[in-house]
Amino acid sequence: MSQLVIVGTVAFDAIETPFGKTDKILGGAATYIGLSASQFNLDSAVVSVVGNDFPQDYLDLLSNKNIDITGLEIVKDGKTFFWSGRYHYDMNTRDTLATELNVLADFNPIVPEAYKNAEVVMLGNLHPIVQLGVLDQMTTKPKLAILDTMNFWMDNALEDLHKVIARVDVLTINDEEARQLTGEYSLINAAQKIFELGPQFVVIKKGEHGALLFHKDEIFSAPALPLKSVFDPTGAGDTFAGGFAGFLANSGQYTFESMKTALIYGSALASFCVEEFGTERLQKVTTEQLNIRLQQFKELTTFNIDLS
Amino acid sequence: MSQLVIVGTVAFDAIETPFGKTDKILGGAATYIGLSASQFNLDSAVVSVVGNDFPQDYLDLLSNKNIDITGLEIVKDGKTFFWSGRYHYDMNTRDTLATELNVLADFNPIVPEAYKNAEVVMLGNLHPIVQLGVLDQMTTKPKLAILDTMNFWMDNALEDLHKVIARVDVLTINDEEARQLTGEYSLINAAQKIFELGPQFVVIKKGEHGALLFHKDEIFSAPALPLKSVFDPTGAGDTFAGGFAGFLANSGQYTFESMKTALIYGSALASFCVEEFGTERLQKVTTEQLNIRLQQFKELTTFNIDLS
Repeated sequence: MSQLVIVGTVAFDAIETPFGKTDKILGGAATYIGLSASQFNLDSAVVSVVGNDFPQDYLDLLSNKNIDITGLEIVKDGKTFFWSGRYHYDMNTRDTLATELNVLADFNPIVPEAYKNAEVVMLGNLHPIVQLGVLDQMTTKPKLAILDTMNFWMDNALEDLHKVIARVDVLTINDEEARQLTGEYSLINAAQKIFELGPQFVVIKKGEHGALLFHKDEIFSAPALPLKSVFDPTGAGDTFAGGFAGFLANSGQYTFESMKTALIYGSALASFCVEEFGTERLQKVTTEQLNIRLQQFKELTTFNIDLS
Repeated sequence: MSQLVIVGTVAFDAIETPFGKTDKILGGAATYIGLSASQFNLDSAVVSVVGNDFPQDYLDLLSNKNIDITGLEIVKDGKTFFWSGRYHYDMNTRDTLATELNVLADFNPIVPEAYKNAEVVMLGNLHPIVQLGVLDQMTTKPKLAILDTMNFWMDNALEDLHKVIARVDVLTINDEEARQLTGEYSLINAAQKIFELGPQFVVIKKGEHGALLFHKDEIFSAPALPLKSVFDPTGAGDTFAGGFAGFLANSGQYTFESMKTALIYGSALASFCVEEFGTERLQKVTTEQLNIRLQQFKELTTFNIDLS
């Protein structure tokens, strides 16, 4: 069975949306990535850190999804990373109300021995130095390394970020961040500039407008599923990345063709994520529900054209 | 041969973009719609008005594209409608520098006798009362009436706008305008509310993010072709509408399936429009070039998924 190493935060989130608010609930990039990737038949391991305030229930939840947590360090006298945010009416913008790094401040990631030859590594949003640390611990160069990052690291750790970008095969990034990173407004030009930094594949995430995949001179456009309502967008990007990485690790094919399908899986899983608070909906997605949604993506995009 | 009646402005535009600026050049919604629809094998007629300052060359240009201009009134002592605008760096926003209604202020549209039984009517962006006037002159109810409008008429002539909306089959509108018109943020809910106003089909234009087609419970998502550079976005929406209407009039099929293909034709033609100033690129599009671009849309959206 293929192995997937996931690095990223495991966190407490407190979320406010126009529809309601939560106390501290399970969150974090690695959590969403792991739960999303658990839809596929593979061995995955989360490399992250929590404090002694992190409930056993949450650990069990991950283990029950066949996610290896031997690389999830529990700091005995530490507190779990906490993020709190409030979404605006349009659900596309949010204010951060609190960010408490806690145990994340001194985190040294440790890849479990059994995963040091994993085929796929998914570097979720975290400090580039932590992401580099994970790559450095891999005994065998992964067949596919995927990097997700955000503008915060461009503003605060650009040099380190460039070092990670140089070592991955795929960069996933949102449209504004792609423009910021490259100084190019056109997403085609931005992708070409990112190719020069190292990756052969660039995924540009556009939220409700879907995602674009670039490779050499080829482009694929995946729509987002139009939704009646978005209940909570938290984790949608990570869920997308988890579905993308999970599909690829499971398929063992790291081609443009395979990545197109992976993009659709990621989009489909993200469309579940936003239906309830936090990871609630994602925990319950069945294979049958996922297949129905994949079929909807097919219908959403299929047209007939006669070019004779 | 199918007949298409096009109502909308025929105008002088003066355009500034980060790449350059023009003097008064040929513009107007009906002009772009007509040129775009001229890609299809059909008889189309423009119903509009210009002043005696409108050059014979421009009239010839339209006639040479097989666009009937007997319904294009020339006001002897009048001046042609003039619009001037400056695009910002991102090309998605612009400032209007001048709007001189001139002959448009007292325009009474006259549908040519030979076109009063046309199958398809494309109501381009203009005062709803003018659009209603055209519908009223049709002897036979058109098989398909398409309405394009904008926020200006929602702000200034909402009651009249509602009267036109009630009488058309398809409304094309951009995402922000759909939200303004219905008070619904979700585009699904917005489309459902528009159905209640009359149309059975709703096309929501999202510019660089493509377009969505809604009909009953069905949705189709057409991407926009990612472009290396957008030289001048003027007329892209009208070109899209013209391709959409032209394809449908030519096909004689007014089904959801047919409209999906029409959306792709509209998007493909719009992708040419933005490559040069004004109508310059649109005037030169060959069937072969269009087919290559349609093929690009196919490649952009095709993926394989095995749901067994």
